[in-house]
Amino acid sequence: MINLSTKYLQGFLTDNEVKEYENKLIQAHKVLHDKNYPGTDLRGWMDLPVNYSEEELHYIEVEAEKVRNNSEILVIIGIGGSYLGARAAIEFLKSCNYNYLDKKTPSVFFIGNNMSSAAVSEVLEICKYKDVTLNVVSKSGTTLECMVTFRLFKKLLEEKYGKDKAKERIYCITDPSKGLLREIALKEGYKIFNIPPSIGGRYSVLTSVGLFPLSVIGGDIHALLQGAADARSRFLNLDLAENECYKYALLRNVIYNKGKFIEIIGGYEPRLDCFFEWWKQLFGESEGKDGKGIFPASVIFSTDLHSMGQFIQEGNPIFFETILTIKKDPYNLIIPYDESNEDKLNYLSDKTLEFVNRQAFRAAAFAHFNSGTPIIHLEIDSTDEYNLGYLMYFFEKSCAISSHILGVDPFNQPGVEAYKNKMFSLLNRPGYQ
Amino acid sequence: MINLSTKYLQGFLTDNEVKEYENKLIQAHKVLHDKNYPGTDLRGWMDLPVNYSEEELHYIEVEAEKVRNNSEILVIIGIGGSYLGARAAIEFLKSCNYNYLDKKTPSVFFIGNNMSSAAVSEVLEICKYKDVTLNVVSKSGTTLECMVTFRLFKKLLEEKYGKDKAKERIYCITDPSKGLLREIALKEGYKIFNIPPSIGGRYSVLTSVGLFPLSVIGGDIHALLQGAADARSRFLNLDLAENECYKYALLRNVIYNKGKFIEIIGGYEPRLDCFFEWWKQLFGESEGKDGKGIFPASVIFSTDLHSMGQFIQEGNPIFFETILTIKKDPYNLIIPYDESNEDKLNYLSDKTLEFVNRQAFRAAAFAHFNSGTPIIHLEIDSTDEYNLGYLMYFFEKSCAISSHILGVDPFNQPGVEAYKNKMFSLLNRPGYQ
Repeated sequence: MINLSTKYLQGFLTDNEVKEYENKLIQAHKVLHDKNYPGTDLRGWMDLPVNYSEEELHYIEVEAEKVRNNSEILVIIGIGGSYLGARAAIEFLKSCNYNYLDKKTPSVFFIGNNMSSAAVSEVLEICKYKDVTLNVVSKSGTTLECMVTFRLFKKLLEEKYGKDKAKERIYCITDPSKGLLREIALKEGYKIFNIPPSIGGRYSVLTSVGLFPLSVIGGDIHALLQGAADARSRFLNLDLAENECYKYALLRNVIYNKGKFIEIIGGYEPRLDCFFEWWKQLFGESEGKDGKGIFPASVIFSTDLHSMGQFIQEGNPIFFETILTIKKDPYNLIIPYDESNEDKLNYLSDKTLEFVNRQAFRAAAFAHFNSGTPIIHLEIDSTDEYNLGYLMYFFEKSCAISSHILGVDPFNQPGVEAYKNKMFSLLNRPGYQ
Repeated sequence: MINLSTKYLQGFLTDNEVKEYENKLIQAHKVLHDKNYPGTDLRGWMDLPVNYSEEELHYIEVEAEKVRNNSEILVIIGIGGSYLGARAAIEFLKSCNYNYLDKKTPSVFFIGNNMSSAAVSEVLEICKYKDVTLNVVSKSGTTLECMVTFRLFKKLLEEKYGKDKAKERIYCITDPSKGLLREIALKEGYKIFNIPPSIGGRYSVLTSVGLFPLSVIGGDIHALLQGAADARSRFLNLDLAENECYKYALLRNVIYNKGKFIEIIGGYEPRLDCFFEWWKQLFGESEGKDGKGIFPASVIFSTDLHSMGQFIQEGNPIFFETILTIKKDPYNLIIPYDESNEDKLNYLSDKTLEFVNRQAFRAAAFAHFNSGTPIIHLEIDSTDEYNLGYLMYFFEKSCAISSHILGVDPFNQPGVEAYKNKMFSLLNRPGYQ
């Protein structure tokens, strides 16, 4: 379901260099699949696509339908892994203009991922005159951005609907047994979905964190999980020819060790923009530790061929590209014939825009490769739920394997605490003064 | 109007290292202000804020008012420098949710900056049932993304309004004397605004390219130009203590030469996101040549503290940060007191959200600095037109100076042609087969 082409790597790597990494890959595989995993075991995402509770899926779908029927806006309050996956999925499946589309499903606003007065005020304003459901996502319930925003929006809902009716419009996605958000939800009678404790934020998109919002906008969450399940079976194979996931993990490490410190992930569809943000957190937070890690960056072409293109073509060559293309185009938008031909584009008339976009990809890959940029080319079939589930699992597992090849723990993020502690101290939070 | 703090650079650079670059800076200044500038002279942006034709400004404002009165949507068709500046300005002044806000001015869609069937189809669909004005921006009229999209939208407008009425809704921003778009506009009777030939795309935001859209959404273009004019006078000074623009140019080169190959620009307001995209083109396209250049990346905090934060704290330390903060917050959004205090946030009640956001900045700067990241801290007063004009001029001039210190031509982009030529050949464009 994912095609990985090494066409644009020719001349950059030798077979021997790849071979040298194969032992590391086998080791990484062994560690990742070891029953006695060293350190904190946060591998719940690995079997999630085949271990899911049908009962919980059903509950998600029932509640999602209620939201579709009683709300014009779904406000999702979360940050990091409690934010990016759901947003990436909605934009990937629908559009980055999803909220503008003429549609029967609620608009979705993501908030609680910053503390900008402007950003929060304007979503509060937008929500004033609409029917709203809140979805608060936090494993612990102590994330400041999220909880401060929740306080503001809870107040708005209670003013709009009264305390009792407001409760029916508040969903909490949190730890199934502990934490402040869970306590609040139980006390107040908010509805709860669980995040399994064995799954960290950046690997949580296939839990209720991603499934509930996706279901609200009418996405097929069974197909999403089926895609992930199929990826899971395929990527158990140690034969590189049958395992694009491991191959990607291996290749990026080989390239990195040849002085390419930045990975630019790119695609030719704006709907991939937030998916790449999700990818950046996944890889950046998993690999960026102990002074190591590939710096993750992203571009949307051809837009960014007219901004970052010059740098990629002729700048300091410390990067490689991973380009994700999509095979099927359901839009079939045709460039019309124009009798005047004053724009001199009739040589393209009756061709689809997708055809032209494809040639832009081929041309840019050719030009960048020829100027010294190694490119890993990934291709999926379409932007449906099945392919999204497959692709997300592909990146999650390749990230875990790649981190082990690099020699870092894929599942912790010790560096994120540093600023938080200082912030709580600056804010005189009780216990941090 | 811009405060540049070196507080978070202490220990990274010595006075001697800075001194060593001062000669290069003086040289760069001399070249940039030399009447006999070597190479193609594209310095029209330098005096633009004091050389603007009042007549053209007036024409822009008159036409902008017409659009405000007869259109629900302004579609801007352009790519690269014909796209990013206007979008950056609108989001900086209003919001990245501008189109959703309850407002009396038209929504703005940017298109023609990619060739995605999905992206173009959905904007065509959105425009079907609304009153629309087109603004086509291309110096030459041969940029494929832009002109193909123009053909599609021109067809839509002619179907909606008839050929004659459609004409009144089409504006072309292009070269004042030559090029295909100009020819078309003259032949068809479309309205024309000029881009001075002495100003390249990425330096064009203060021409009609940025001014017309800004005026349509009700922005004060006189204040914008006044900000730029004041920046222009201040940044003529060779005394670094009085010239934050030159100081920024110098510091980033010193840091770069100490192995910090990536500049991460960041801020704490989502409205800065597209401004940073504009910045990335400006610096990336100006500096990324001859195998040189600082790789430009961007983040929005605190959002990205929960995605890129781990990497910045503990990953491969080949980057530095430039953080842009905003002094004034007009929103005054207060965190309410909550009697139950079940979220344990009453220690923040009656504080503004902006206060908390400020502490997040201080905490992250402290944590990143302590883990070895040099940070240049820039601060502006507010997100109004005056400050935007000032800031844009600040970055334009620092970019030109910085490029000269680096030893590259700030105004060309030879590498952008490589993929275009290949693309035209793949598309069998006449003359390119």
